[in-house]
Amino acid sequence: MIPSDSTARALAEAATARMLEADEASRAMGMNLVTVDRDHAVFDMRVREDMLNGLNTCHGGIVFSLADTVCAMVANSRNQKSVLQSATVTLTAPVHKDDILTATGHRSAGEGRVAVIDVTVTNQKDETVALFRGSTYEIRGTHVDQAGD
Amino acid sequence: MIPSDSTARALAEAATARMLEADEASRAMGMNLVTVDRDHAVFDMRVREDMLNGLNTCHGGIVFSLADTVCAMVANSRNQKSVLQSATVTLTAPVHKDDILTATGHRSAGEGRVAVIDVTVTNQKDETVALFRGSTYEIRGTHVDQAGD
Amino acid sequence: MIPSDSTARALAEAATARMLEADEASRAMGMNLVTVDRDHAVFDMRVREDMLNGLNTCHGGIVFSLADTVCAMVANSRNQKSVLQSATVTLTAPVHKDDILTATGHRSAGEGRVAVIDVTVTNQKDETVALFRGSTYEIRGTHVDQAGD
Amino acid sequence: MIPSDSTARALAEAATARMLEADEASRAMGMNLVTVDRDHAVFDMRVREDMLNGLNTCHGGIVFSLADTVCAMVANSRNQKSVLQSATVTLTAPVHKDDILTATGHRSAGEGRVAVIDVTVTNQKDETVALFRGSTYEIRGTHVDQAGD
Repeated sequence: MIPSDSTARALAEAATARMLEADEASRAMGMNLVTVDRDHAVFDMRVREDMLNGLNTCHGGIVFSLADTVCAMVANSRNQKSVLQSATVTLTAPVHKDDILTATGHRSAGEGRVAVIDVTVTNQKDETVALFRGSTYEIRGTHVDQAGD
Repeated sequence: MIPSDSTARALAEAATARMLEADEASRAMGMNLVTVDRDHAVFDMRVREDMLNGLNTCHGGIVFSLADTVCAMVANSRNQKSVLQSATVTLTAPVHKDDILTATGHRSAGEGRVAVIDVTVTNQKDETVALFRGSTYEIRGTHVDQAGD
Repeated sequence: MIPSDSTARALAEAATARMLEADEASRAMGMNLVTVDRDHAVFDMRVREDMLNGLNTCHGGIVFSLADTVCAMVANSRNQKSVLQSATVTLTAPVHKDDILTATGHRSAGEGRVAVIDVTVTNQKDETVALFRGSTYEIRGTHVDQAGD
Repeated sequence: MIPSDSTARALAEAATARMLEADEASRAMGMNLVTVDRDHAVFDMRVREDMLNGLNTCHGGIVFSLADTVCAMVANSRNQKSVLQSATVTLTAPVHKDDILTATGHRSAGEGRVAVIDVTVTNQKDETVALFRGSTYEIRGTHVDQAGD
């Protein structure tokens, strides 16, 4: 693997910035970028009232969404456009209103067009609340012009 | 399997109504109940601007959320409280702004405390856009008082 | 979808025969082809003593193997070589020595290079013992020469 | 988590020995125990001729079986009987005849009756060939008598 030097990091940051600019869904859910690098990303999010389900815990789809955003940023961090093909999520502890969730993701396998990306979601007490594994594949196009970087 | 007669259906409808009342997340995403019965549920939803990701298609977490809500309603349709343990989603076609998604779910296996629930999500052209499979397990408590039914 | 006429079926049968010829693993486990058609396949298998695990039930990997073989035959039934990328299996009932397992698979989604294939495994009492969902993708090459068919 | 001291390790070794004694399937596939400890296990296996599929690579079910055995040993390493509920496997590189596979597993989440166990399978060149994630749950009974230990 190419070591994550300053150029790789700058490229990951530029690609992520471009994606987030257009990502209405992640913004609407209040997700914040903590850090991003080649093959690595961290986001956090506070659980709001309008994210609760009928059992008064956070809707599984919201937890999935946070992990999916991190997965997307990792998958696209090399500047090549990539999309999710499938994902598995395991919910390991309930999530409540006002919990602060942190999702940390990295590329676990795949040097070609297909990648496997793992994301762990923890709460403010550092308890693991979800494990997410996504399979992504590259499509045509890049996010930023690398020559002009 | 117990045949779905009018009592089973009424119980499923009552449990679902009680869950939806408290389900802020599903409401915020604009999900509509189409029909529910014992071990079966259908919801639909229009894809809004604030549901798009950085590639200008619907965020995978939103599609997952719709399927997860249907899964929850199927799992809880016998009136016993149930929660999701894990789920796998496969995204089979991109989803765009203003698409109308319909998610149809049923119990595929499990007569005990654990159930497997399959949900298929289609768009207004009846194309399958996602396949969701969830594993749920029962917890203590019921949604409505069955004696008083 | 192209209707499964006699040509499509003959092609599926020829591709399957070619694959089974070389499939040492499926033969060693005693899997039998029941039927195959375009996007559809059925195999059965008897659970032997040497397939049991430390809890005296059938090893999950053996049940997975049967479903995986069916998935492979469905994925390759159009004559284009295809391989498994990922799969999820849910074990819904224990499997015992001398059980006769039947695995029935079909293509659930995917008209392009990627397909989703569902396989249901039942026992001789028609109880569902496992649900398998595989994601496959096409690689270069065909199994039989279609022009010469 | 309880630190893995000599007592925990001895218990894991005793439970594993008891399971392997009865595990005809793992023996038939030639799996070897490398090491086991509380919440951790490593096995290896050589890919034989009778493990190849119709594309002349190792059958996915065999790779799954190795990972599943490791998952079982991790899940049962606290001496409480546990079984697999569901698992997802992603095949990241092809496996060939005479490859030596090493599967390394650990408990990723779950302190109660349900656990999530991750297994990574590598070949003799230390390339990752598969990622496996299993959900297990405890059933009644222990493998060895702890009082007499």
